[in-house]
Amino acid sequence: MAIQINKQLIEEGQVGAVIEWLASIGETESGGVTRLLYSPAWLEAQVALKKMMDQTNLYTYFDSVGNLFGRLPGTNENDKTILTGSHIDTVVDGGKYDGAYGIIASLLATVRLFHRYGYPKKTIEVVSLCEEEGSRFPLTFWGSRNISGVYNLSRVENVRDGAGISFFEAMKQAGFDPKSYGSPVRTDIERFVEIHIEQGMILERNKNQIGIVTHIVGQRRYTIRIKGESNHAGTTPMQFRKDAVSTASHLISFLTDKAKNTDPMLVATVGRLNVKPNVPNVVAGEVEFSLDIRHHQEEIIEEYCQNIFKEFKRFSDVSNIEVEIVQWMDVKPVKMDEEMCEWAGEIAERNRYRYQKMISGAGHDAQVFGGICPTSLLFVPSRGGISHSPQEFTNLEELETGIELLTEVLYKLAY
Amino acid sequence: MAIQINKQLIEEGQVGAVIEWLASIGETESGGVTRLLYSPAWLEAQVALKKMMDQTNLYTYFDSVGNLFGRLPGTNENDKTILTGSHIDTVVDGGKYDGAYGIIASLLATVRLFHRYGYPKKTIEVVSLCEEEGSRFPLTFWGSRNISGVYNLSRVENVRDGAGISFFEAMKQAGFDPKSYGSPVRTDIERFVEIHIEQGMILERNKNQIGIVTHIVGQRRYTIRIKGESNHAGTTPMQFRKDAVSTASHLISFLTDKAKNTDPMLVATVGRLNVKPNVPNVVAGEVEFSLDIRHHQEEIIEEYCQNIFKEFKRFSDVSNIEVEIVQWMDVKPVKMDEEMCEWAGEIAERNRYRYQKMISGAGHDAQVFGGICPTSLLFVPSRGGISHSPQEFTNLEELETGIELLTEVLYKLAY
Repeated sequence: MAIQINKQLIEEGQVGAVIEWLASIGETESGGVTRLLYSPAWLEAQVALKKMMDQTNLYTYFDSVGNLFGRLPGTNENDKTILTGSHIDTVVDGGKYDGAYGIIASLLATVRLFHRYGYPKKTIEVVSLCEEEGSRFPLTFWGSRNISGVYNLSRVENVRDGAGISFFEAMKQAGFDPKSYGSPVRTDIERFVEIHIEQGMILERNKNQIGIVTHIVGQRRYTIRIKGESNHAGTTPMQFRKDAVSTASHLISFLTDKAKNTDPMLVATVGRLNVKPNVPNVVAGEVEFSLDIRHHQEEIIEEYCQNIFKEFKRFSDVSNIEVEIVQWMDVKPVKMDEEMCEWAGEIAERNRYRYQKMISGAGHDAQVFGGICPTSLLFVPSRGGISHSPQEFTNLEELETGIELLTEVLYKLAY
Repeated sequence: MAIQINKQLIEEGQVGAVIEWLASIGETESGGVTRLLYSPAWLEAQVALKKMMDQTNLYTYFDSVGNLFGRLPGTNENDKTILTGSHIDTVVDGGKYDGAYGIIASLLATVRLFHRYGYPKKTIEVVSLCEEEGSRFPLTFWGSRNISGVYNLSRVENVRDGAGISFFEAMKQAGFDPKSYGSPVRTDIERFVEIHIEQGMILERNKNQIGIVTHIVGQRRYTIRIKGESNHAGTTPMQFRKDAVSTASHLISFLTDKAKNTDPMLVATVGRLNVKPNVPNVVAGEVEFSLDIRHHQEEIIEEYCQNIFKEFKRFSDVSNIEVEIVQWMDVKPVKMDEEMCEWAGEIAERNRYRYQKMISGAGHDAQVFGGICPTSLLFVPSRGGISHSPQEFTNLEELETGIELLTEVLYKLAY
């Protein structure tokens, strides 16, 4: 049952209450949130946000794919727009803050600015991006990539969700009929600012309140398939084996050590691993594992990949065991705007916030906007680094500090 | 549809036809065999074997657990019995030879001896042991262990199969009502001889026809559980991780190398490995893997286990990641009777068979009988070392050579 709130809570900046309100839409039994793109909970949340924004002084509208905008027009009519917000969708049984905090913070900051200073010089638009997580359909950043032009309808022609529902059908069911699609591409965005929970434990460990992101990492993801030979675990001598599990173990140990020795900021993760036939008394014939590599410098990723794949090949040749490497993701690092980072730093200094510059190890809409305009990404701490879970948490003081910073940043950009 | 044969094929020693006949009972779509303890196919096979043996000069009977015996009484009435045979059950979708060849070979050899030489001095009994594989219920060697006295009804009081059917109920359904259980323990067995397919590739690689087993390996099986911490694959720096997959990889690489460096006959296998949550962009919080260690000398197994578990502990302490080691199998090595090995070797020499002595890396009923009497285990080659599969194969000439050897061995023991 969705919590009811009124615009007063928005105007008073009661971020805790507004977070709870939005989290009640799509709430799960475990206290988490599930709002998948174009689902009923997703639509309910966007409609509720729109109604809420309508009660403030924002002019609201949807684009063709379901991104929701709340516009505070600037007095300089021909200027471009300062866009600020995050994504409304969640992972399955996710937390209350991931994406939602960014939308709410942008909204509360903008309303606060209007109440203090009236209309800005440059137009500010608060955006609730329709999709970022890739939690329903097999693609990500559907909201921001339509705005930047990287995606359009042709990208999703044959895409279906896990239940077999087509993307087009899902759009139609949510009231965004593909037949009425008009390009959501925006060419008027001067800057994009997003605030988000860190989803890591750096700020908490360093006891900082604010993270100013300088880069969003590049990412490469691979599937590695090892083809050995299934054999009897008792009667097959070690020297006659083509053991896919011991092969995988060697490669994974190597790539993990190599990551630690290449650069302290490099991360490499084997999160998923499956064995065939996966039976205790049979030497494994096949292993497939995922490999997720991230760093904010492309050349470091490249150097690391070359080194590990050279070893994969060497080991494969020496042991006569086939190792297949299939790449399925290649996202380049994105640099946040240096000037905006500086301004955020100056504001933080002046207000005596405990802050630091940092790298974002997770992807964000800011990296998509970073391709079309100067962009800034700001972090607030995540308790225990926990995210994508009902246990996701940031305390009230930290949430408010973020909004204060964002308010001053938007003031600098738009007033 | 079971193939029909007549006793003439038995008397002519047409092993190929008899193999095919028995394999047709419980045949699967892929050309394999599934005969699980007390199942309809199992019962059909035992009954058919009994009928076949009834048509020869053997006196047939079942014991209380469903072991089938075919007795050729010896003229020295107070002597003990020479027992020879193997197991009638199979794994799911197994091969035609595993266990079945041993029963058929013992039967054909005994019938051949009777036709050539009449009744033996010592009683010979052909046995079709009811169960060895552990493929229906979670225990193995139910047939031989009831005969040796290691198992009895109390062992299976609370045992159920994967479908929830109790052991007692299954016995009853097959016509072996536990209420009628009378101890199947035999104290009259002087010697046990089993011939079996190798299920490995040593004989094939060495181009030998016969393997004379000197030892059956001891086995230890463990479950290793690693408890790390699930974390975001992008935002968690390497030095803050408790990555269960990279930990497992280190331990598995270590134990594999250590096995190769400890003794050329030692085998160590990680056949099963499962990861949680097993998602590409989450550092693994838990890994569980199986460890299967075999060697014919207990002190080698002990030395190896001490070394690897010392390293497991060291690594666990240094990385502050919990490594739990649970042992669930501990079978001691069993030495085959030296004298019987010598006799088999002399017979092989005399007949110019290409033979070798060897270790059995797989468990066999012979290891159970080896606990109560002098025992001999003989091998014939397995093409490609393949077993537990419809592709299991041994050629006709090799099958016949095995029967010839077994015949002469039984002659030496009983005539």
